[in-house]
Amino acid sequence: MTLQYVLELVGTFVFAISGALAIREREHDLFGAGFTGFITAIGGGTLRDILLDSYPLVWIGDIHFLYAIMLGVLAAFIFPDFLSRLRKTFFLFDTLGIGFFTVLGVEKALSLGVRPEIAAIMGMFTAVMGGVIRDTLTNETPVLFRKEIYASACLAGAVLYVGLNYWGLERDYNLLISMSLVISIRLIAMKYKLSLPRLD
Amino acid sequence: MTLQYVLELVGTFVFAISGALAIREREHDLFGAGFTGFITAIGGGTLRDILLDSYPLVWIGDIHFLYAIMLGVLAAFIFPDFLSRLRKTFFLFDTLGIGFFTVLGVEKALSLGVRPEIAAIMGMFTAVMGGVIRDTLTNETPVLFRKEIYASACLAGAVLYVGLNYWGLERDYNLLISMSLVISIRLIAMKYKLSLPRLD
Amino acid sequence: MTLQYVLELVGTFVFAISGALAIREREHDLFGAGFTGFITAIGGGTLRDILLDSYPLVWIGDIHFLYAIMLGVLAAFIFPDFLSRLRKTFFLFDTLGIGFFTVLGVEKALSLGVRPEIAAIMGMFTAVMGGVIRDTLTNETPVLFRKEIYASACLAGAVLYVGLNYWGLERDYNLLISMSLVISIRLIAMKYKLSLPRLD
Repeated sequence: MTLQYVLELVGTFVFAISGALAIREREHDLFGAGFTGFITAIGGGTLRDILLDSYPLVWIGDIHFLYAIMLGVLAAFIFPDFLSRLRKTFFLFDTLGIGFFTVLGVEKALSLGVRPEIAAIMGMFTAVMGGVIRDTLTNETPVLFRKEIYASACLAGAVLYVGLNYWGLERDYNLLISMSLVISIRLIAMKYKLSLPRLD
Repeated sequence: MTLQYVLELVGTFVFAISGALAIREREHDLFGAGFTGFITAIGGGTLRDILLDSYPLVWIGDIHFLYAIMLGVLAAFIFPDFLSRLRKTFFLFDTLGIGFFTVLGVEKALSLGVRPEIAAIMGMFTAVMGGVIRDTLTNETPVLFRKEIYASACLAGAVLYVGLNYWGLERDYNLLISMSLVISIRLIAMKYKLSLPRLD
Repeated sequence: MTLQYVLELVGTFVFAISGALAIREREHDLFGAGFTGFITAIGGGTLRDILLDSYPLVWIGDIHFLYAIMLGVLAAFIFPDFLSRLRKTFFLFDTLGIGFFTVLGVEKALSLGVRPEIAAIMGMFTAVMGGVIRDTLTNETPVLFRKEIYASACLAGAVLYVGLNYWGLERDYNLLISMSLVISIRLIAMKYKLSLPRLD
């Protein structure tokens, strides 16, 4: 088990918790919360792999991801108040998570031989489309269309990664630098309430 | 033509009718109703087969499913009042249908070599995701998130099927027992207005 | 570069503009508009190719489509007022576009060996599902369910194409005739405010 693999499982676990908690104030039962956690955790990577025809899907080929999700949903059920009070911690985890999954998504797409422009889009999809599918199913405005800088931070990090990769930067440095860009943009945007210009 | 094949076509026909009638009170025209019936009937199996990379999709490889859907939509158009009055009969048919398609979905997934945990999820998806996609497209709260016990009954039957299959129970018995569990849970939950605990 | 290829790129460019402008009055930022333009332009063909297991997806295999989309979104950002004033011109372009993409979608499906009934559905999906996915993500009632004759015009043209193709009409004539049917139905329906019968 490499460090990266452990981090992927932890990231999946955290995404499942935040997905399950995301619908807490709505009238959803245990099953609905579990389904929402599941979709949030696997949606982005699943869409990426379907678009790139990469099978088996990660969570179908490796059952540990399903277990990580079930643990996350269970945790959300047993400790909902405790976890909800950790809002700030979760925001941080979520931010680390989207940075991490953006870069992994770019890498996987590149390894499948697509062009860098496509790989950057796939990295962003990996990080944010789980949340978008969740919001669409629950009739929320997808996080993508809200005014906070979210998906665009991922896209910026993904573009940086393919750029630095093209210029030959070693993988581990690139991973850290590109993740840091995603995380920094997101944290700075939240702190100073920055948003992108609107179309008007 | 085996009995199972005939039942699959009948189930598709019934799902198409209930899909087309589901939007009756809304301002949808003939085309919208047809599209809704189509999505309801093929959505779950299509999602399952895309996730498992199983091609050609059932309704693309065998045109009879499309004909069954067209007949169902036509029936909904010619006899809307008659069919709407059959509400209770339809509820029963729908309940039989989700039980049947849950078990078939599990079997297909197992035959494609995935693990039992994944096969159980695929069985549930087969039965309920057509309705979920329909509800999402028409901006309804997906049936999955409403308080009745619906998808969780399918998941229970799917888990039972993979369990009994693992313990070596003969297929025909397993099919009947697992379908009965789905149907019993659903009928009992409706009769006694049972619901799962909420996350709060 | 054949004429058809140029027209496909132009059509993608136009769909991206209209997708980006479609959400103008809503609170979406530059990224949201870009994403919406992207989904509108590639959604239909992507769904068709996933359903038919045809890989690589068009926009993943040929980067020019992504560039056409980026140009379209950029144009929508730099000249929003100018382009919004061209509403009638855009309606015409959109109508030409759905006629064109319907027929191309039918052809691609036929070339992949599916039955004519399935090919007709795929042609309609190619033309309209990008808009449907866009509307679903942005919580609008999908264009498919609104009362104007839209998707049904595409289906009519697609059915005509497979019919004339079956009767041996030469491809170029068939393309023009079937496109003209889509366009005529749509223009006449808009002019005389025609709609299909409702289910009631």
